[in-house]
Amino acid sequence: MKALVYHGPGLRGWDTVPDPTIIDPTDIVVRNDCSTICGTDLQILKGDVPETTAGTVLGHEAVGTVEEVGAAVSTVVKGDRVLLSCVSACGRCRYCKEQRYGQCLGGGGWIFGHTIDGLQAEYARVPFADTSVYKVPDALSDEQVLFLADILPTSYEVGVLNGMVAPGDTVAIVGAGPIGLAAILTATLYTPGRIIAIDLADSRLTSALHFGADTVINNGREDPVAAVMELTNGLGADVAFEAVGVPATFELAAELIRPGGRVANIGVHGKPVTLHLETLWTRDVTITTGLVDTYTIPQLMRLVASGRLDPTVFATHRFALGDTMAAYDVFADAASSGALKVVLEGSARGKGPDVYAAPALIGTAV
Amino acid sequence: MKALVYHGPGLRGWDTVPDPTIIDPTDIVVRNDCSTICGTDLQILKGDVPETTAGTVLGHEAVGTVEEVGAAVSTVVKGDRVLLSCVSACGRCRYCKEQRYGQCLGGGGWIFGHTIDGLQAEYARVPFADTSVYKVPDALSDEQVLFLADILPTSYEVGVLNGMVAPGDTVAIVGAGPIGLAAILTATLYTPGRIIAIDLADSRLTSALHFGADTVINNGREDPVAAVMELTNGLGADVAFEAVGVPATFELAAELIRPGGRVANIGVHGKPVTLHLETLWTRDVTITTGLVDTYTIPQLMRLVASGRLDPTVFATHRFALGDTMAAYDVFADAASSGALKVVLEGSARGKGPDVYAAPALIGTAV
Amino acid sequence: MKALVYHGPGLRGWDTVPDPTIIDPTDIVVRNDCSTICGTDLQILKGDVPETTAGTVLGHEAVGTVEEVGAAVSTVVKGDRVLLSCVSACGRCRYCKEQRYGQCLGGGGWIFGHTIDGLQAEYARVPFADTSVYKVPDALSDEQVLFLADILPTSYEVGVLNGMVAPGDTVAIVGAGPIGLAAILTATLYTPGRIIAIDLADSRLTSALHFGADTVINNGREDPVAAVMELTNGLGADVAFEAVGVPATFELAAELIRPGGRVANIGVHGKPVTLHLETLWTRDVTITTGLVDTYTIPQLMRLVASGRLDPTVFATHRFALGDTMAAYDVFADAASSGALKVVLEGSARGKGPDVYAAPALIGTAV
Amino acid sequence: MKALVYHGPGLRGWDTVPDPTIIDPTDIVVRNDCSTICGTDLQILKGDVPETTAGTVLGHEAVGTVEEVGAAVSTVVKGDRVLLSCVSACGRCRYCKEQRYGQCLGGGGWIFGHTIDGLQAEYARVPFADTSVYKVPDALSDEQVLFLADILPTSYEVGVLNGMVAPGDTVAIVGAGPIGLAAILTATLYTPGRIIAIDLADSRLTSALHFGADTVINNGREDPVAAVMELTNGLGADVAFEAVGVPATFELAAELIRPGGRVANIGVHGKPVTLHLETLWTRDVTITTGLVDTYTIPQLMRLVASGRLDPTVFATHRFALGDTMAAYDVFADAASSGALKVVLEGSARGKGPDVYAAPALIGTAV
Repeated sequence: MKALVYHGPGLRGWDTVPDPTIIDPTDIVVRNDCSTICGTDLQILKGDVPETTAGTVLGHEAVGTVEEVGAAVSTVVKGDRVLLSCVSACGRCRYCKEQRYGQCLGGGGWIFGHTIDGLQAEYARVPFADTSVYKVPDALSDEQVLFLADILPTSYEVGVLNGMVAPGDTVAIVGAGPIGLAAILTATLYTPGRIIAIDLADSRLTSALHFGADTVINNGREDPVAAVMELTNGLGADVAFEAVGVPATFELAAELIRPGGRVANIGVHGKPVTLHLETLWTRDVTITTGLVDTYTIPQLMRLVASGRLDPTVFATHRFALGDTMAAYDVFADAASSGALKVVLEGSARGKGPDVYAAPALIGTAV
Repeated sequence: MKALVYHGPGLRGWDTVPDPTIIDPTDIVVRNDCSTICGTDLQILKGDVPETTAGTVLGHEAVGTVEEVGAAVSTVVKGDRVLLSCVSACGRCRYCKEQRYGQCLGGGGWIFGHTIDGLQAEYARVPFADTSVYKVPDALSDEQVLFLADILPTSYEVGVLNGMVAPGDTVAIVGAGPIGLAAILTATLYTPGRIIAIDLADSRLTSALHFGADTVINNGREDPVAAVMELTNGLGADVAFEAVGVPATFELAAELIRPGGRVANIGVHGKPVTLHLETLWTRDVTITTGLVDTYTIPQLMRLVASGRLDPTVFATHRFALGDTMAAYDVFADAASSGALKVVLEGSARGKGPDVYAAPALIGTAV
Repeated sequence: MKALVYHGPGLRGWDTVPDPTIIDPTDIVVRNDCSTICGTDLQILKGDVPETTAGTVLGHEAVGTVEEVGAAVSTVVKGDRVLLSCVSACGRCRYCKEQRYGQCLGGGGWIFGHTIDGLQAEYARVPFADTSVYKVPDALSDEQVLFLADILPTSYEVGVLNGMVAPGDTVAIVGAGPIGLAAILTATLYTPGRIIAIDLADSRLTSALHFGADTVINNGREDPVAAVMELTNGLGADVAFEAVGVPATFELAAELIRPGGRVANIGVHGKPVTLHLETLWTRDVTITTGLVDTYTIPQLMRLVASGRLDPTVFATHRFALGDTMAAYDVFADAASSGALKVVLEGSARGKGPDVYAAPALIGTAV
Repeated sequence: MKALVYHGPGLRGWDTVPDPTIIDPTDIVVRNDCSTICGTDLQILKGDVPETTAGTVLGHEAVGTVEEVGAAVSTVVKGDRVLLSCVSACGRCRYCKEQRYGQCLGGGGWIFGHTIDGLQAEYARVPFADTSVYKVPDALSDEQVLFLADILPTSYEVGVLNGMVAPGDTVAIVGAGPIGLAAILTATLYTPGRIIAIDLADSRLTSALHFGADTVINNGREDPVAAVMELTNGLGADVAFEAVGVPATFELAAELIRPGGRVANIGVHGKPVTLHLETLWTRDVTITTGLVDTYTIPQLMRLVASGRLDPTVFATHRFALGDTMAAYDVFADAASSGALKVVLEGSARGKGPDVYAAPALIGTAV
């Protein structure tokens, strides 16, 4: 089959690789119908994720059709359409029992396209299927549920739920990239009184308004702390999300909240940050971090099914699966392309040509 | 001044009574700008509330302007526009400290129009002002906040919050009178997946759809248990609200929920009910009861101010304060009039004639 | 092998039955080292549990040694010593993912000695092993963990945790049989201020004092409501547990609590009860029911390992496994024997003769 | 009257000052029967609390007898024995209504011996009496409740409750000074499985064992991270308290916890700390800070009354109130004196000479 293979820092290819097969009795094999690319895939390509070795198929978000079922799998059968979570759950360890699948001690966690072959491929082996995949209701399209594999539960669990957003709250979101936008979208489920998005790029702030922000602040031009204090009668936001992943934005988030407020870190950090305990120690703050567990996929799927949540707003570009190489280019160049999420449509459903016109890109540095 | 006075079972009058004055240093006196009538007022008139004695001014919901301030009051001044909660809070007892103002042990709780003179009058004495009234932001009209005095926090606190409604939940509401409609409206703050309203009257079910219900069931024509089970794949609702106050509706609510579900009783009950522990003991259910505490008034006011919640949809009829007698007739005859809540506009703001054309109604039985 | 077999209402035998074998790849076969008898076993023998058919091996609490392991089992190996939960968990359904194993929709829940062969036998087949058994630390004896299979987590989860016992609380326990005593013992983990036990039998009240009650009330001689009100300055208990299972004790529990209090039902009920909503509707009460899920077994095991909890106080009588018939007699006649829990020691460990001297009891009515 | 007066950095005196009087109708005046000294008093004397001006009477912890009552005070009368909280609560602002008295916006918070005259004096004016003092049951001595004014609720609220200690947890406490010891003592209310105390001083670790620690680690001699990991099978502690207030101990606390664990900061910090988000972002941690609110005083008082909690273990030294100057010397030199808390017994109760033999100490630098 064909798959997007990592060849070391800066290098990727749309290669022919062996078809996956059942290894453990808890495995299934799935045909990829619809998948996407994540910012983390770009980090792997940059060489920032050393545990991912050359030769690994990338990708950890997909909707597919069950092709083969291991002997111990009891909840899905061949032909079922399933959403594959970005996080695999052994279902047996202490953390899986507490639904902290991201912390799985039994061989799961984030493994797709990280420590085992991933989902940007025609087929994939899916470990721990009974506890890691979710049947898709017939009424929902692949694209309606695709972004429940990672980005929506990430922002919802690590941002909205950790931050305990409540009706009427003032919620400040530092960073209006895809993760920040997903935090805005899912925060609206709790009807905050005011959502404030803060970013350096006006284009992202425009998206933020589209996704549900009430107020936007370009912190390149305006002092965001002063602006939030003014909007909250000097008190500060009830909740702040850090959705960038650098020290300055974390420190900003911590400065924005009122006494008794919550800072939910969603960003991926590579460096330590400064925590101003010399002021925060008196302020009754709660700071949370977290990996996505995707335990909210069933809840989010119900919200999509009932028309309360529309994740397809993230789909800015669509490609045939065979054009994954080009899709990477577009996604990596979000500043120009405006890409939020790209949809890779599986050729199996015949939704378009799977030949991409720019072969020179194979093996190209990101 | 003029006031609506209870004269014993079946009897009420629009009487001239002495102006209220400051008694305790924690009192204020308020000029009534906008008030309303509650189902409980009708129960008093029926004679069902024996602790309310003849001669009591009725009413426990109003917006007013501070006229006089007791020596110990520090948070409001003459001229402030305030919302008067239906529940007074001494602010000092164990229950008030836990925000269970409805259970106040220090002389508060539901006292207006119950054990002391109430708010359907030109002026009122308001005890424990610092902990029982809420300043109204200039941007909000009297009518936008009036229903935060009782009906909205009742349904929100005793129904939605006690029932722990979460995004995506199936919520069943037994009874679509004003309290049930307020439960529907405030449940939407948590974005349930499906709101099911159950009632015997099609007119109320039509209102339910208008207030946010997704599905309505007339339980005079249709088996509500079968219908809810069908909508939930045989599992049952996540949450059910009892919003009527008779044994049959409580038992129905308890039958509708799934294992692990919650039944929040909002109805006012005069008789014991049967609890089917012979089936429920295994089903992990939680059943809650409660008096309103109105501790959510500030939260609800923020939601109104931010445009997320519009309580004015309850205002089906408007009267001048001087026409309170007629307003009672219309409100008591909701079946014909379709009244949800009537607004009594204070004469002080000159919003209409305060002479009502039907003097024969004075002293009339409800 | 030998096993205690149910032969229809009133009849049981210590029979030779086929050895169990692996059926599903998620099964294990365990050699019984230590087991016990539950009040529910007596109810089956009375004929009150119609879904248990003649020929079923009884018992749902045991510690054993793994003999055989199914192909899909990954967390235990032959030779491991394991605690078998009274509740089996498929680990895959909605309820298992939320740790509500008692409500398992995937073939688990209470099945041992109920709908499949149970654990009062030399060997047992254990379904869903990876999610239903718990390895026992070497430092702990079989008897130290045996009662974590059912009675302790039942009282802890359905009583103490559902009732949200907090430090300093007044906790009233209606019924001081084994379940009530286990509720007392596990309530002490949260350091309530006062534990009040209520029962009709002085012998059980004496046990209650031994297990940690501070005050006992014989409600055959004393008015328990008056007594609790006097102890709580007229307010009522913070939490009440119903640990009997008849209407009168439930109604008593509901009468004992203060406004804002919690009633946690632990008893097994066969009849509806009366819920006095005509008074309770105003009192902010929370009433919970529940089946045990045994999700707290790891927590309780840590407490036993650290010496904070000693479940062996329940072991009033010990028998060799081969004397299970006699053990039933003693356990069923708790009023005379004073039995709380009997320990059935597996012959494999050679702890005594497995021949019981009273063969006439085989087939005896309970 | 006589009082301990701050005269600027390094200077204090036992001075004659005017008797306090009622200023606001919500005030009371209290005769000091029993008080104590806090580490914060020493910080003021060092000049680290610039908002405390020369001439201020120090002290914020006392038990006293009501002498005079303001016109609006309704819950205490002359002669009542009361515990004075270190935190005053206006009872009317947003934060007081949520029981976050430490964040009071209405003139309360920590004011005694900080921004108004404090409690190391023969008499004191107590603002907001109805919401800031607690009647002491007759059965309890002054000394039994004295430490509920500050140190016990601080460690309980900001440590144990913010850290959500649960039965069976492994709790690591960094710093075994008085605050750390109070955290150990109050953590035992939730029956953790293992309490680990970490400090550089063996004498403090010996105290930790006496207060309830199971394991002690001298981090001058032993690697505390390695030791905690070994005790927890490599996972880390469930909860860690920072009870020192310097960057190194905060960073240590954050390193000790398992994925999903909580770090509760109790220490008073003067400098920023480093938060290692580059590792913590994936670990599902919760970090909390907080000022004491003393909302748990009634709960803790119930626990003392029921014999579950004995705060008198902190009283290492006793002085007559008139010997407050000497008491400061002993308390400030805890390293030599071994002082945890000193009790200043009010002369009114005639418990000893109020003349101290070392007059040279007046005006001495701490």
